[in-house]
Amino acid sequence: MARPLNAGVAGPMTGQMEGLMMVTPLTLGELIIPRAEELFGHRAVIARVGDGVHRTTWAETCVRARRLAAALARLGVGPGDRVGTFAWNTHRHLEAYLAVPAMGAVLHTLNIRLFPEQVAYVVDHADDSVVLCDRSLLPLWRAVEPRLSRPRQVVVLPDLAADDSAAAQSSDLDYEELVAAAEPLAAWPQVDENAAAAMCYTSGTTGNPKGVVYSHRSTVLHSLAVGLADAQGLSSRDTVCAIVPMFHANSWGLPHASALVGASLVLPGRDLSPAAICQLIESERCTLAAGVPTIWSGVLDHWRRAKPDLSSLRFAVCGGSAVTESLSAAFEREIGVPILHAWGMTETSPIGSVSHLPVEPGAEADEATRRSYAMSQGRAVPGVVLRVVDENGAPVPRDGVTMGEIRVRGPWIAREYYRDGAPPDKFADGWLRTGDVATIDALGYIRIVDRTKDLVKSGGEWISSVELEGHLMAHPDVLEAAVIAVPDPKWDERPLACVVPRPEARGRLTAEALLEHLRPRVARWWLPDAIVFIDEVPKTSVGKFDKKVLRARYAPGETAAPLPVSEARG
Amino acid sequence: MARPLNAGVAGPMTGQMEGLMMVTPLTLGELIIPRAEELFGHRAVIARVGDGVHRTTWAETCVRARRLAAALARLGVGPGDRVGTFAWNTHRHLEAYLAVPAMGAVLHTLNIRLFPEQVAYVVDHADDSVVLCDRSLLPLWRAVEPRLSRPRQVVVLPDLAADDSAAAQSSDLDYEELVAAAEPLAAWPQVDENAAAAMCYTSGTTGNPKGVVYSHRSTVLHSLAVGLADAQGLSSRDTVCAIVPMFHANSWGLPHASALVGASLVLPGRDLSPAAICQLIESERCTLAAGVPTIWSGVLDHWRRAKPDLSSLRFAVCGGSAVTESLSAAFEREIGVPILHAWGMTETSPIGSVSHLPVEPGAEADEATRRSYAMSQGRAVPGVVLRVVDENGAPVPRDGVTMGEIRVRGPWIAREYYRDGAPPDKFADGWLRTGDVATIDALGYIRIVDRTKDLVKSGGEWISSVELEGHLMAHPDVLEAAVIAVPDPKWDERPLACVVPRPEARGRLTAEALLEHLRPRVARWWLPDAIVFIDEVPKTSVGKFDKKVLRARYAPGETAAPLPVSEARG
Repeated sequence: MARPLNAGVAGPMTGQMEGLMMVTPLTLGELIIPRAEELFGHRAVIARVGDGVHRTTWAETCVRARRLAAALARLGVGPGDRVGTFAWNTHRHLEAYLAVPAMGAVLHTLNIRLFPEQVAYVVDHADDSVVLCDRSLLPLWRAVEPRLSRPRQVVVLPDLAADDSAAAQSSDLDYEELVAAAEPLAAWPQVDENAAAAMCYTSGTTGNPKGVVYSHRSTVLHSLAVGLADAQGLSSRDTVCAIVPMFHANSWGLPHASALVGASLVLPGRDLSPAAICQLIESERCTLAAGVPTIWSGVLDHWRRAKPDLSSLRFAVCGGSAVTESLSAAFEREIGVPILHAWGMTETSPIGSVSHLPVEPGAEADEATRRSYAMSQGRAVPGVVLRVVDENGAPVPRDGVTMGEIRVRGPWIAREYYRDGAPPDKFADGWLRTGDVATIDALGYIRIVDRTKDLVKSGGEWISSVELEGHLMAHPDVLEAAVIAVPDPKWDERPLACVVPRPEARGRLTAEALLEHLRPRVARWWLPDAIVFIDEVPKTSVGKFDKKVLRARYAPGETAAPLPVSEARG
Repeated sequence: MARPLNAGVAGPMTGQMEGLMMVTPLTLGELIIPRAEELFGHRAVIARVGDGVHRTTWAETCVRARRLAAALARLGVGPGDRVGTFAWNTHRHLEAYLAVPAMGAVLHTLNIRLFPEQVAYVVDHADDSVVLCDRSLLPLWRAVEPRLSRPRQVVVLPDLAADDSAAAQSSDLDYEELVAAAEPLAAWPQVDENAAAAMCYTSGTTGNPKGVVYSHRSTVLHSLAVGLADAQGLSSRDTVCAIVPMFHANSWGLPHASALVGASLVLPGRDLSPAAICQLIESERCTLAAGVPTIWSGVLDHWRRAKPDLSSLRFAVCGGSAVTESLSAAFEREIGVPILHAWGMTETSPIGSVSHLPVEPGAEADEATRRSYAMSQGRAVPGVVLRVVDENGAPVPRDGVTMGEIRVRGPWIAREYYRDGAPPDKFADGWLRTGDVATIDALGYIRIVDRTKDLVKSGGEWISSVELEGHLMAHPDVLEAAVIAVPDPKWDERPLACVVPRPEARGRLTAEALLEHLRPRVARWWLPDAIVFIDEVPKTSVGKFDKKVLRARYAPGETAAPLPVSEARG
């Protein structure tokens, strides 16, 4: 009488009974915007625009979003059409964050830090129909326009006084005029939960930018995740300062999550100076703020000088790249605000993992252990399935030492890029291969050590270029250091370090001194075979080390002869 | 060039662009169980069974769940089949919570407090194939069996030593033997996210129990909701004591949510005495515990005598019925543990709203205001759309005074009952009509005042029977009081109070004294037209006031003549 259970076999199960719960679609128009408008309409939305601070509410923001949707429809924006934004974090950008997806169109946030050629590529690739552009960014946008395959309708968001708009053109439309002229949409349309809500292109260091297309479902689920106690724990009691740009992975999901939970939202506009950020946090009594490590090291420096009151912060959320131990420790000990370290990428919406201290026995035993967890990228948040795997796709031992690539799966992880197919090296077997190399410990905490393409694969073992760079940059005479792999006939690859000495150490700093500095810090076989001194590490448009330029210069492929160590060392 | 936007029209939108995120199904086998097993395998699962405490881990629980799934499949349980449980909160019941849904079958938790006839009705209506029954509950189950339409295979969960099983039969199977003999399922099957995961029958006071069928999707989303800072904020740092029975709306979602977030889970078994509960909370350092008001008033009494250390609790979660002001205040002031008041029902999975204090200005101004919010049922949690509406379905003013019925919508709200169709009076226009009557204030906080069927509709206005009962029961000579509506030719309905005097006040307490007591407390037109003294308020199988018995006795329908006031008053 036993019936077979189709476990472990491919394909979905049949014969299940149907659940009888509502099939409420997970969309912005159903679950996010009405909450902000009806339940938290009185909560504040605060944006620094130009030299002033614009104060409004979620209720007003939502009414203006309904006006904006009607105005965009009159401009010809229909279901599925892409609407580009070229803007700082302001209340108008927030209105577009709500209106464009909820009307069934697609919000395409353009990265203002890309080169004009790249912006033009992205606008053409996504086929944006309209672009909402901050007045302060018009000069940048005007450099993009000649490179576009066809002209786009520009709607100007007046973040500067009108007389500053030297780059304005007569064909530009004014955002405030459009919004004022439109009747608010009475009700949001019924959008499919799997329909596109937003898109964001990666600023990868290789090849053209790739488009990630978020769905309503992924956006709602990700917003719930941001509200989890195991993630940022965002709630109606928070006042959130979203420093991370709204053109970077939806400002880490904070605008939509704030609308869902009814948090007050503070948007810093163009001025990302430490003094301006501290002033906003202090005056608005922000409980949570989110930015990259360089933002927080600037804030730390400013705090040491000016001692602004940052005591309202529950956490300083930090992601984008790894936080240093000194920054993490100083923030907690001096300012009294813990840094909450998170990991993710454009392809992961972006929250993948968050590092809260574990409660497991021993984990909080001593300061060094605490610090090690605070510096880790934490555990996968609920909803994200995460593995650290070897080159064959098998999970590595959870010993905190063995390195492997992070693969993730889940309802807010990209399954393919827009109009790019699904390259098997990136999306395979239902997993996203992140390209991030990490260790994972017994409690499931990951620690990123490198990018796969930057690893040095030497004699079957992996050497972390990031760790070597960290040690080199800790030397007092070193300004910057980038480590790349060079082909080696015996070991396949060996590390080569490109070092920028501090100005005062030029000509004095020697390769031998750096090797001496590294010897007590890394395994002997990790020591670079060559150290070259350069004037500057080449950077991408968004400021990341551009190692492909260095590789082209020093590691010209396996067909070429390896660079003699003596020459490189000179 | 403007294209129409299909806002406000019926039917889904067309022409949207497809999102390119993974369509990871929201199922227990994909998102909940692997987290508990792989990421939080070391975290504790603790159950009081018999006289001892059984200590295990999530890893072991999940392995045993995979054994249980294989064992049930060998017994013939296939996709969509219902598996009944007749059990207290133990680790074995928890294994069934994971195994049965994840194998594609349906977990049907039977309410052990129903009359045997009702249990038999429910087992037959759901057509359970196998019933997992605690050994300690076998005597109760044996009373159910003769009333079943056909015999069911019983699997005995040994929560007592073998020699206590006087009610055992030779056809019963032993849970531990089955689990030991089965090989753990290697992988969970691919279940559709909209497939049924579990079902639970309401114990309504009218008609037969109704079956609510939870889906995998609703279970995963509800589990995420329990982890929201705006709900219970359940996290990997918690140790949860789930006092609310696992046969009541999935123990308010705590077992599945604990598995998702990796919380330790403490299950109290059969002994729900205040001393036993306090002992568990104290010894396991529970951070959160959930139960009905009677549990917490028992705990308060015990605490006042024995002063157990309950300081590890973040919250005492309280739902099921309204908490009294004295209980809420005493818990916070004396024990130092806030009561977190929540509202929901079997049809809402059950979390609908949770009362955290608002941060809005003025809300924490004084103790009375704080207490009023703590006593309210709070705001709808993210994912639940909630309206308080008048008899025409229009939202009532958000003044905290006007009464209306609560309607809810959302992905973890029932859309119909099992094999019961969708009666238009309960599920209409995509909303669940909860039958709960509440006020809603400007911040969206609801306060339940009655059930719709218990309201007294007098002259077009509503009188809350619950509020009148509360005032009557606050009189020192009153033990219990139930207020019902009686037909009235002029006002449609008028309130009649059925009062049980305390034994020492029998014969002494007068209707006039009670009216005198009510006069300063309620509006003049709320005063009952009649007060009758009775020996006992009739109760349902689960201990609720059974007002339909009182109505049959004192308000025999509109065709009958109204009860003369003078007679009733005597």
